[in-house]
Amino acid sequence: MDTETAVHLKSLFEPRGVAVIGASSKKGKIGYEILRNIVDGHFAGPVYPVNPHEENILGLSVYRSIIDIPDIVDTCIITVPPEQVPRVLLECGRKRVSGAVIISAGFSEIGNFDLEKQVSKSALEGGVRVIGPNCAGIINTEKHLYATIESRIAPGSVAFITQSGAFGGLVLASAREQRIGFSKFVSYGNRSDVDEAELLEYLLGDSQTRVIAMYIEGLRDGRRFIQAAKQVSLVKPILAIKSGSSAEGARAALSHTGALAGSDRIYDGAFRQAGIIRAQDVDDLLDMAKSLSCQPVSKGDRIGIVTNSGGPGVMMADALANFGLKAPEPSPATYDKLAFLPSICSRKNPIDLTAGTDSESYRRTIRVLAESEDFDTIVVVFIPPAFQKSGTISEAVLQVAGTISKPIVACFMAGDLVRDGVEALEKGGVPNFPTVSRAAKAVWALEQRGKILAQQPQSA
Amino acid sequence: MDTETAVHLKSLFEPRGVAVIGASSKKGKIGYEILRNIVDGHFAGPVYPVNPHEENILGLSVYRSIIDIPDIVDTCIITVPPEQVPRVLLECGRKRVSGAVIISAGFSEIGNFDLEKQVSKSALEGGVRVIGPNCAGIINTEKHLYATIESRIAPGSVAFITQSGAFGGLVLASAREQRIGFSKFVSYGNRSDVDEAELLEYLLGDSQTRVIAMYIEGLRDGRRFIQAAKQVSLVKPILAIKSGSSAEGARAALSHTGALAGSDRIYDGAFRQAGIIRAQDVDDLLDMAKSLSCQPVSKGDRIGIVTNSGGPGVMMADALANFGLKAPEPSPATYDKLAFLPSICSRKNPIDLTAGTDSESYRRTIRVLAESEDFDTIVVVFIPPAFQKSGTISEAVLQVAGTISKPIVACFMAGDLVRDGVEALEKGGVPNFPTVSRAAKAVWALEQRGKILAQQPQSA
Repeated sequence: MDTETAVHLKSLFEPRGVAVIGASSKKGKIGYEILRNIVDGHFAGPVYPVNPHEENILGLSVYRSIIDIPDIVDTCIITVPPEQVPRVLLECGRKRVSGAVIISAGFSEIGNFDLEKQVSKSALEGGVRVIGPNCAGIINTEKHLYATIESRIAPGSVAFITQSGAFGGLVLASAREQRIGFSKFVSYGNRSDVDEAELLEYLLGDSQTRVIAMYIEGLRDGRRFIQAAKQVSLVKPILAIKSGSSAEGARAALSHTGALAGSDRIYDGAFRQAGIIRAQDVDDLLDMAKSLSCQPVSKGDRIGIVTNSGGPGVMMADALANFGLKAPEPSPATYDKLAFLPSICSRKNPIDLTAGTDSESYRRTIRVLAESEDFDTIVVVFIPPAFQKSGTISEAVLQVAGTISKPIVACFMAGDLVRDGVEALEKGGVPNFPTVSRAAKAVWALEQRGKILAQQPQSA
Repeated sequence: MDTETAVHLKSLFEPRGVAVIGASSKKGKIGYEILRNIVDGHFAGPVYPVNPHEENILGLSVYRSIIDIPDIVDTCIITVPPEQVPRVLLECGRKRVSGAVIISAGFSEIGNFDLEKQVSKSALEGGVRVIGPNCAGIINTEKHLYATIESRIAPGSVAFITQSGAFGGLVLASAREQRIGFSKFVSYGNRSDVDEAELLEYLLGDSQTRVIAMYIEGLRDGRRFIQAAKQVSLVKPILAIKSGSSAEGARAALSHTGALAGSDRIYDGAFRQAGIIRAQDVDDLLDMAKSLSCQPVSKGDRIGIVTNSGGPGVMMADALANFGLKAPEPSPATYDKLAFLPSICSRKNPIDLTAGTDSESYRRTIRVLAESEDFDTIVVVFIPPAFQKSGTISEAVLQVAGTISKPIVACFMAGDLVRDGVEALEKGGVPNFPTVSRAAKAVWALEQRGKILAQQPQSA
């Protein structure tokens, strides 16, 4: 990535001042809601509404044009009617704005290719980089910048890049429900200028971002994207949903985007080569992001399962096997080290502590598995027997997790009944998943990530 | 099923009076909690605590023995120490009790086979049918009977049978969170007497039950079970999780149950032959139960998708394809009937109404697909664009759903943002699923069920 682009994008995401062109005082209007989102989100710098027909919105003075703003503006959020966008971009250039996020729709997505070309031309003329048009905006939680029509999200270490604004909103809502925080959010819409590859390269240098999650419908420049992803995935995990993975879906994608989504097998191979881990749905995208953002990668595919219920332990082994992962028997040495367990327990993998167990048995068993050479990842299954609290078990997990370099993933099941334990676990950096299938996929991501790093010995 | 067994089980689940043997006044003790659950659940008939060392528990007079109770007792819940159970069962026999639910543990599951044999002998002697031992109890929501150590659940049309009590608790908790109601709940534990086949046959005759969901670790009499399932599945759908489906899992199951779980391929074939639809996890078990309990079966595998967002529509087509389902193009006639849609919309499957659409477009489009010969099931995808409510869209879905015989499944995505719409949908009998994968599996269940019924022309 050239230095100029890097500086532009950094400035776009960390502006000293933000202007909303087309700001409105009418609730429900995008020009109002996006301004309100920026103000309510407590953006650290000054915010300038621009609209020749308004005077004061949300307590802020309104400027007739961006040129009239008497201070630095690095980022413009544009919500004016589409035909006005090229003119606004020329003004942005005069004002030496770094980047414009064009929320306005009505361009190539409805066949208005000429207008989108004018947008590109005007932007290029003034040296303004463009996100969009027809996008849902950007978020930088570090700077409290919520320049989006979508809902806000807590700070965290996952960056999310999405082609579809609506899907972006869905991911934000799901992440909020699951208490997953984001570093950056970018809806890039029609991608008239800044594309996926540049965003990846920007996020590579972003210290807030540990994991990059993407939603892609079709790439503009596949080769360039794969090259960028290859570099970035050496350092940070990249997860991606690419819709149109089935023959049916690809045919549907064709009628949706008007461009061939590409043979999925080609995508699959290219993604693998680039170190991108594929997701199928919102749940697995966020689940994998969660585990990769807080756990070390797995050195192999041998999973040690600790459970207090035999059947669900077996279900976990089944779910892991679906992803090609193994649940091998412990070595005789490890088996012997588990001799402290009551005879009713099973010392074979899954290690079944049985329903009457306590936190001390969990703690000691997890410690033995963590310190053995038999397993690469530990999965802790817990289903609360009636009237048993999960808090003491999560404490036991965290006591070991804090002292080892192997990944630990939890599968405390039963919703409300384990809420205390799950909250404690996730505060302590151990990801929990509500079903064996979801836990297994998260474990798989850690194993895949380990493989990617192992294949690239020059990696960090 | 012989008449005597049928009458016994009916009496066990619909008792005129219930006794809790080993009732306790100490909070946290099973003998207290199960009595409290029955009392708080407002069981319709009289409840008799039995314990020679107590006088009054929760405002109820305590009896020294079941023999002392001066009225009819059809069902006994037994929570006494295991060595006392055979004696208690003999007393139950003298009292002409229909069934005993033995919560007490400490039998074959810890190698105490002799004691379990004594249990069977004592029960047989007095003609008492036994659920358990080592089980979590039973629920009959119709009679407000919550004779379980697990949490309560709202009435509904799903019956759930589980070998593992802990897993039963998990399913109850998940069902409650997803607002799915149950007709019956049976945890059968060590299965010393009443087994899966008898429970299936009982549920066949239970008018409250429309769908039967099961969790099985290993069968006692596979042939007998398959025979029973074959009969029952002619009338009511049977869903089952069978743990130990992978080679790893089967090996783990061996060390858990001490009995060979059986080659999964054999199970798979037998289940298919018996009309049992397999689930892998809590989520898909409940999702499929939900759709089968409120929607007609699908006559084929051609799915029509309506969406307001192209990418997620394509993801839905991908997810359906994963289950072997098709999303074919509409016929020219259907395509023409959709001409009322604005030109920005896509009339190919998925029908993409685009983000700016309204409830009227949804309603008319769903109506066209429902009335066409092109599709066997309709899937409605909705992701709320910023600030759009889901309530009007759910209304549109329900207006059509109420008037057609084809299944409709909804996938309103974005958690909190669609809560209103989802609640309305499910109240109106249209199941909603929060991700495309889960919706696709629920659609698959309707298609599978259609196939099962089509293969058995003698069915209802």
